[in-house]
Amino acid sequence: MALLTRIRGPRDLDRLTPAQLAALAEEIRTFLVEEVSKTGGHLGPNLGVVELTIALHRVFDSPRDRILFDTGHQSYVHKLLTGRQDFSQLRMKGGLSGYPSRAESEHDVIENSHASTVLGYADGLAKANQLQGHHDRPVVAVIGDGALTGGMAWEALNNIADAKDRPLVIVVNDNERSYSPTIGGLANHLATLRTTQGYERFLSWGKDALQRTPVVGQQLFETLHGAKKGLKDFIAPQGMFEDLGLKYIGPIDGHDLTALESALTKARGFGGPVIVHCLTEKGRGYHAAENNDEDRFHAVGVIHPETGLPIKTSGKDWTSVFAEEMVALGRERKDIVGITAAMLHPVGLAPFAKAFPERTFDVGIAEQHAVTSAAGLATNGLHPVFAVYATFLNRAFDQVLMDVALHKLGVTFVLDRAGVTGTDGASHNGMWDMSILQVVPGLRLAAPRDADQLRAQLREAVEVDDAPTVVRYSKGTVGPAVPAVGRIGGMDVLRAAPEGEGEVLIVSVGAMAPMCLEVADLLAAQGITATVVDPRWVKPVDPALPGLAAEHRVVVTVEDNGRAGGVGSAVSQALRDAGVDLPLRDFGIPQQFLDHATRDQILNEIGLTAPAVAEQVAKLVARTAAARV
Amino acid sequence: MALLTRIRGPRDLDRLTPAQLAALAEEIRTFLVEEVSKTGGHLGPNLGVVELTIALHRVFDSPRDRILFDTGHQSYVHKLLTGRQDFSQLRMKGGLSGYPSRAESEHDVIENSHASTVLGYADGLAKANQLQGHHDRPVVAVIGDGALTGGMAWEALNNIADAKDRPLVIVVNDNERSYSPTIGGLANHLATLRTTQGYERFLSWGKDALQRTPVVGQQLFETLHGAKKGLKDFIAPQGMFEDLGLKYIGPIDGHDLTALESALTKARGFGGPVIVHCLTEKGRGYHAAENNDEDRFHAVGVIHPETGLPIKTSGKDWTSVFAEEMVALGRERKDIVGITAAMLHPVGLAPFAKAFPERTFDVGIAEQHAVTSAAGLATNGLHPVFAVYATFLNRAFDQVLMDVALHKLGVTFVLDRAGVTGTDGASHNGMWDMSILQVVPGLRLAAPRDADQLRAQLREAVEVDDAPTVVRYSKGTVGPAVPAVGRIGGMDVLRAAPEGEGEVLIVSVGAMAPMCLEVADLLAAQGITATVVDPRWVKPVDPALPGLAAEHRVVVTVEDNGRAGGVGSAVSQALRDAGVDLPLRDFGIPQQFLDHATRDQILNEIGLTAPAVAEQVAKLVARTAAARV
Repeated sequence: MALLTRIRGPRDLDRLTPAQLAALAEEIRTFLVEEVSKTGGHLGPNLGVVELTIALHRVFDSPRDRILFDTGHQSYVHKLLTGRQDFSQLRMKGGLSGYPSRAESEHDVIENSHASTVLGYADGLAKANQLQGHHDRPVVAVIGDGALTGGMAWEALNNIADAKDRPLVIVVNDNERSYSPTIGGLANHLATLRTTQGYERFLSWGKDALQRTPVVGQQLFETLHGAKKGLKDFIAPQGMFEDLGLKYIGPIDGHDLTALESALTKARGFGGPVIVHCLTEKGRGYHAAENNDEDRFHAVGVIHPETGLPIKTSGKDWTSVFAEEMVALGRERKDIVGITAAMLHPVGLAPFAKAFPERTFDVGIAEQHAVTSAAGLATNGLHPVFAVYATFLNRAFDQVLMDVALHKLGVTFVLDRAGVTGTDGASHNGMWDMSILQVVPGLRLAAPRDADQLRAQLREAVEVDDAPTVVRYSKGTVGPAVPAVGRIGGMDVLRAAPEGEGEVLIVSVGAMAPMCLEVADLLAAQGITATVVDPRWVKPVDPALPGLAAEHRVVVTVEDNGRAGGVGSAVSQALRDAGVDLPLRDFGIPQQFLDHATRDQILNEIGLTAPAVAEQVAKLVARTAAARV
Repeated sequence: MALLTRIRGPRDLDRLTPAQLAALAEEIRTFLVEEVSKTGGHLGPNLGVVELTIALHRVFDSPRDRILFDTGHQSYVHKLLTGRQDFSQLRMKGGLSGYPSRAESEHDVIENSHASTVLGYADGLAKANQLQGHHDRPVVAVIGDGALTGGMAWEALNNIADAKDRPLVIVVNDNERSYSPTIGGLANHLATLRTTQGYERFLSWGKDALQRTPVVGQQLFETLHGAKKGLKDFIAPQGMFEDLGLKYIGPIDGHDLTALESALTKARGFGGPVIVHCLTEKGRGYHAAENNDEDRFHAVGVIHPETGLPIKTSGKDWTSVFAEEMVALGRERKDIVGITAAMLHPVGLAPFAKAFPERTFDVGIAEQHAVTSAAGLATNGLHPVFAVYATFLNRAFDQVLMDVALHKLGVTFVLDRAGVTGTDGASHNGMWDMSILQVVPGLRLAAPRDADQLRAQLREAVEVDDAPTVVRYSKGTVGPAVPAVGRIGGMDVLRAAPEGEGEVLIVSVGAMAPMCLEVADLLAAQGITATVVDPRWVKPVDPALPGLAAEHRVVVTVEDNGRAGGVGSAVSQALRDAGVDLPLRDFGIPQQFLDHATRDQILNEIGLTAPAVAEQVAKLVARTAAARV
C-alpha cells in the first residue's frame, strides 16, 4: 500500500503518473477485499467504482465542487481518498460509517442512504449555486442505473433538464444492477446506449477527416454537425436523455481512467446539466464477486478473502422463515403474488420467484410503484405480498394510505429489518413503521415473536382481503420459540400472574417477548407479580386488552420501534377510550437518529434491556403503591 | 339536454351519429358550466375532456375494460355518461363525489385523488389480467401531462414498458398544465411532440404512394419501414417514450372525435402497452375559463355562469395571510426561497413568485423532489419554504425524515388545508400530518390559531436553521384574533382558571382555540373550572406543560387531526414521562376515511364540537371526583 498510504486528500492524486494511478487502483482493490472481508460491508459496489472515484477526485475539486453519492454504499473508495483509511472498525461503534457521514469529513455531503435522492439534492445545490453567483462550481451526482428507476430520480431529471445554465454533472454508474439486474424500459434503453460506443468514435473520425479537406469537408462537417442530433439517433438511437434536454456523454468504459478523466473534464466545462454514462462492473477485480450472479457481493458479512465464503454461519433468520412460508403459500393459493423493489434476494422472495416466476414482480427501486401496482393486482382479485425493508416502506406511505387502505384492498406488506438494525446506521433502522402505520384506517399490523408466529401470522395476513395487512420482524437470527400459556381475546399470554394478583401487565411486541419475560422474572425477584401478553396483532389494539389491564395496577409496553405514536401510544389511547386510567409506561426507541453500532450496543445505550426496564417498572410500582397508602 | 338525458350508460353512445355526438358534447359543456357554477367544483379540467371521454366510452367497453382517471377531478363527463346526471348536490353530503367513487358506480375503479398513481394501478390490473388469462381486456389509464412529472408515473412507465404482451393504453391528456403550466424537461419534450403532427401523415402518405408502385416501391417501403425508428427520429425526434419501449400514437387533436376514436381503436388492437398523446384545452368552450391564464378555472367555487366571477366573497383566508407574510419575509431575507409542487396559486406562493421570480421554484407534481431539492438548497445555506396541501406532504414523508431531518437542515414546510377540509372527500382531508410528523427527530411543528399567530410562527419557523419546521393551518377563512391572557413557558394561556382552582386543563391546537374557549364556557356553566392553553408549537411538547397539567385534575387535548399518534398522544406521553399520571382525554378526528360533506357537517358527525366535548369532559370530571371520594 505504498501509494495509498501517501494519499491524505484528493489533491495528492494530482501528481501521480498514469502508471502510479493504475497501481493505486490495484492497491485499493486489494485493500477493500482484505479489510471488508474482516468486517463485512458493501464490497461489490466499491470494487466497481475504483477508477471512477479516482477520476472524479482528479477532475473535480472537492469539497468546493460537491461530489454526491447516491445511496452511499459505494463511498469506500471516496473515503480512502479523503483521509479515511482505517477500516478496522468499519460499521462498528466509533469506527467509520458504512455510508458517507458529515461527521467524518467535509467531503461528505449527504448520508441519507435511501436510493434515488442524489439528483434532488444536486438540483437544490445547483439552484443555490446559481442564486449565490457560484457559476463556476459544478455539482457532481453519482447515481447507479438501478437508482434511476426510482421516481425521485425522474422528478429531479425533469427539473434539472429545465435549467440549461446550472452546472450539474450526473455520473450514471451503470453496472446493469441494483442488488439484482436492473429491470424495466430504462434498463433496456441503457442497454441500447451501451452498444453505441462506436458512434462517438465515428463522429470524431468524421470531424477530423472532413476538416482535413478544407472547403468541401468543412461544409460537409457543418451539415453533419447541424444534423448531429438526427444523425446520431439514426445511427444509434439514444434519445431519452437528450429528449429531456440533457447533454449526454458516453458510454464511457468506467475502468479506463484516461477515458473517464477526458469525459469528466468535458462535462465539467460544459456549464449546464450533463449526463456522463459510465459502464462499470460490480465486484470488478475480485474473482469471487465477479462469478456471483446473484448480487456480485453487494453486501457481505465477514468472509474468507480468497474464496469469498462466509466465515461464520448463524442460525435460521427471520427472512428465510418468511421465504419458506411464502413458497408453501404460493403452492396452496394461486392468487398470491410476490413483489419486490429490486431486492429479490435480501427480502427472501427468491425461492418464491424460482417456484412461481410468473407471479413474481421486481419493479425496480420503486417502492411507490410496488404498492400502487399491488393495489391494481388486488383490485383484480389477486393477493399481493410486498416484501420490503421496514425503513423503505416510508417511501410509499401515501400509497399504502390512499391507494390500498382507502380502497379496502387486500395487500400484505412484509417488513424485514424492522426495529434496531444497528451497523448500517440511522437510515437503516426500521423504527418508524409501527408509528406511521397506526394512522392508516383499517390496516392490521402483526409483530410475530418467533418463527412459528411468523408463519402463522403471515397466513392470517393473507387471509384478509379487504384491508392492508402488515407483518414486521427483526433483522438476523430468529430466537427459540416462545410458547403461550394461555389466550385472552386474540392475545397470547406468555406468563400468567396468579388470578387477580397481577400488579403489572407487560404488553410485549414481537421479538421483545424473551426480554419481557426476563423483566417479569426480575420483578418477581422483587416480589412484584407480572402478567406478560403478546397481542400478536398490535393494530388494532385487541378489544380484550383494556379489560385485562384493569385487573392490574400498572401497564407496561415494550416495543422495538420509535416511542412517538408507537404501540405504547396506541395502547394508552385504547385504555383512555375504555376509561381505564392506569399509570402506563411505554418502552421503545427514543425518537432520535441512532449512530451505527451493534444492535446490542444500541439497546444497551437506549435502556431497552430487561434490567433497565425492570428497574423503571419497579420504581413506578413502588410509587403507585405509596400513592395508595 | 335532449341527447344527454337519454344516455343511461356508455353503450347508449353506440347508436349516435357524428352530428348527434357533436351535439351531445355541446350539451355536456352547457350542463357543466350551468351545474358546476351552482355548486363549485373542477370545471376547467372537465370542459377539456368532453370529446375524449365520449371517445373512450365508445371505443372501450367499461367496466369490462377498466377506464381509470388519474387524480379523478376530470371524471364529471365520465359520470354523466355512466348514469350519474344529478349534479345538484355535487360534493355535498349525500350528493355525487367530486371524484370517482366506487360506491357510486361500477364504472369507477380508483378514487385516491392524489396525482400520478393511475399508471401504477394500471400496471397492476394489466398484470392481473395476464395472470388470469384475460388477454383481451385492455386497461385504459387517462393521465395529464402534469401528472407525468410525478415520480410514480415514471416508476410505472418503466415497468409497463417492460411487458410487451400486456394490453395497456395510456392516454396522455396533454393540456400543457397541471394547475399551472407544466414545467420541466418532459414538458419541453411534449412540446416537441406536439409540433410533429405532420410526421404520421407523411409516413402514411409514403406507404400508400410506394405500395402503389409494385416492385421498387415495395422494396423502398420496406427499407423505409425498417429504418422507421431512425427516420422518425430524424424528422421529428419523439424518442423518449419509444426509447423506453412504448408504442406512441399521436399527437391527436383531443377535441376531434373522429381522430380520437381512430387512435383509440388502433391502440385497443395493439395488444401491448401504447401511449395515445391527446392535445386538449383546459376550459375548452367556456369563454371565461379560456381567458384565464392563471389556472383556466381548474377548480371554482360558486360562480356566475356567464362571467365566471365568484358570487360570494368570504373574509381573508389563511392562504392569503401566508402569501402576504412570505412576500414580507422575502424582502427582509434574501436567503428565503419558495417551492411549490405545481400549485403556485392555490398555496399562496404566487405573490412571492411575482416579487422574487428567481427565488421561486415550481418543481412539477413532485413532492418528493420538492423536499429533497429543498434539502439541497438548505445545504448551501438558503432557507427554503415548501408550501403544500397537508395531505400531499404524505408523499414525501421519507424525504422529510431522511433528507431534511437526518441532515439537520433548516427547511420550512407550510401545510395548507390541514385538518377536515370536507367537500373534496377522504383523500383531501389533511388529517395525517400532525401524527406522522411526530416521529421525525428534531422537527418542530406549529399550529397557529389565528392570522397574527400564523405571521408570527412563520417568522419563528424560518429562524430555525438546523431542523425542519412545519406551520400548518386550515382551509378557508381565518377567524378573528384570539388573544392570549398570559404565557407559561412557550404556551399562550387563552383562559386562566383562578390560581390553584383549575380542574380541567384544555390544550387547544391551532384553529380549535375558539371551540376550546366555548368548551370552557360550557364547563363553567356547570361549575367546572378550566384553563385553556395554546402551546403554539405542538412538537416538541412544551416542557412547561407537565407542570401545568399537574395543577389540574384532568387534561383534555383538542386537535383538528387524526387521533392516532396525534398531539393528544404526544401530550399523554410527555405527561407519563414526567410522572404526571392524570386522566387525559384526547379529542380529534377518529381514525377513519371521511366521506365528503361540509366541514361543519363532519365536525358535528365526529363529535368535534364544543357541546359534545364539554359533555364528555364533564362526565370524566364527575367520575374522577367520585373516585376520590
